[in-house]
Amino acid sequence: MGRYLLTIAYKGTNYAGWQRQDNANTVQEEVERALSVLYKRPVAVMGASRTDAGVHALGQACSYLVEDDFVPAHKLPLAINSHLPPDISATFAKEVHESFHPISDTRNKTYVYKIYANAVRNPLVSETSWHVYNKLDIAAMKEAAASFVGEHDFSAFCAANGSAKTFVRIVNSAEIYMEENNMICFRVNGNGFLYNMVRIMAGTLVYVGMGKIQANEIKGIIESKDRTKAGITAPPEGLCLVGVCY
Amino acid sequence: MGRYLLTIAYKGTNYAGWQRQDNANTVQEEVERALSVLYKRPVAVMGASRTDAGVHALGQACSYLVEDDFVPAHKLPLAINSHLPPDISATFAKEVHESFHPISDTRNKTYVYKIYANAVRNPLVSETSWHVYNKLDIAAMKEAAASFVGEHDFSAFCAANGSAKTFVRIVNSAEIYMEENNMICFRVNGNGFLYNMVRIMAGTLVYVGMGKIQANEIKGIIESKDRTKAGITAPPEGLCLVGVCY
Repeated sequence: MGRYLLTIAYKGTNYAGWQRQDNANTVQEEVERALSVLYKRPVAVMGASRTDAGVHALGQACSYLVEDDFVPAHKLPLAINSHLPPDISATFAKEVHESFHPISDTRNKTYVYKIYANAVRNPLVSETSWHVYNKLDIAAMKEAAASFVGEHDFSAFCAANGSAKTFVRIVNSAEIYMEENNMICFRVNGNGFLYNMVRIMAGTLVYVGMGKIQANEIKGIIESKDRTKAGITAPPEGLCLVGVCY
Repeated sequence: MGRYLLTIAYKGTNYAGWQRQDNANTVQEEVERALSVLYKRPVAVMGASRTDAGVHALGQACSYLVEDDFVPAHKLPLAINSHLPPDISATFAKEVHESFHPISDTRNKTYVYKIYANAVRNPLVSETSWHVYNKLDIAAMKEAAASFVGEHDFSAFCAANGSAKTFVRIVNSAEIYMEENNMICFRVNGNGFLYNMVRIMAGTLVYVGMGKIQANEIKGIIESKDRTKAGITAPPEGLCLVGVCY
């Protein structure tokens, strides 16, 4: 008997998100199918984060319990990958205590949201970034991103259909930086995130970059707890769950 | 009447290459279809490079002649893009002399070949890089890449079914560098490239990285003019035509 923790990377473009559901192809279903083939019996996994349809991951985490744990942890990634489609990959595995819980044991998570700001689209990044036609003010976006850091009630950055009991979250770091090809990246680490929180943060930062919201208004928007004061919910293709820390 | 030069970017994954052909979807066909809709009459384009099936481009060039040139050059990219699928994009356009020829007027071209060397695959880069399971010796690859520079007979780096009249080409620069996420990139600029030349160079560099070929053997392989002495032809997904210079 053993409990394992897997790190899973996926391109979410062709999936209806992580969480198993009827009548839609999900990443969880593919991972469970691969594990069930490997272990020759049904295996259920629990993921750390219910990423939305179209959202990607480099470091999703999930855990499962098996009675007959004949595959050593270091051999699991390649063994699992041979049963996964090319857009999903197990990148790391380790054995954990039987009481381990992938959601409640989470210390913090890191997301990166990518924004491609250019008058013309770039087909090589269109599935993994948000294409914004406008030129953006990066300095203003950097200043605005820093305002997210701290312990706040993030009601203003939560989709209306969220089901959280408390809207208070701690954001440890939040920064804007550039990658190759002028890709604007927003990286945020926190102890937890409300429904659509990172995407609303990204949409708000783009509004700052466009001058629709001023950088020094972010603190007031957080304090207002009013979703309508923040920017739009950025589309899923720009978002990637980079890692979950336990 | 006007002749235009377009810069075209595309993700080649779902295309049978640039060049129009019967019974297969090609990038040229999509570009010609978009231009024909825009100008309301058939438009034929000539590309600078016949990229293979699965090969990408950030800077393919092509040229066409139209009698009724009612769209000014600076408005062409967005006008054309509204008729192109999401994996193809016109990024720049300018009017050129009527005698302009996209192939014979080429001064040099730049290609980048991307290699992802890791025991486990990364689904976010699997369509735009070559996944190599082995750890590679980057220092040796850098040394080997430098050996390609100069005017050489590159017969050893040409696929058997090439149709070139001469195998002599000038490579102006060739280097290995790293991008984010440990992506190994091979960038090469030259006055022209033989059939599969960049992919055979990339395959040979990976053999150097694996220790199957020594870096100081590259000069001898070029001199041998023997294709069997070089490495394998790297797969198309890692290759991108970055730019054509006129």
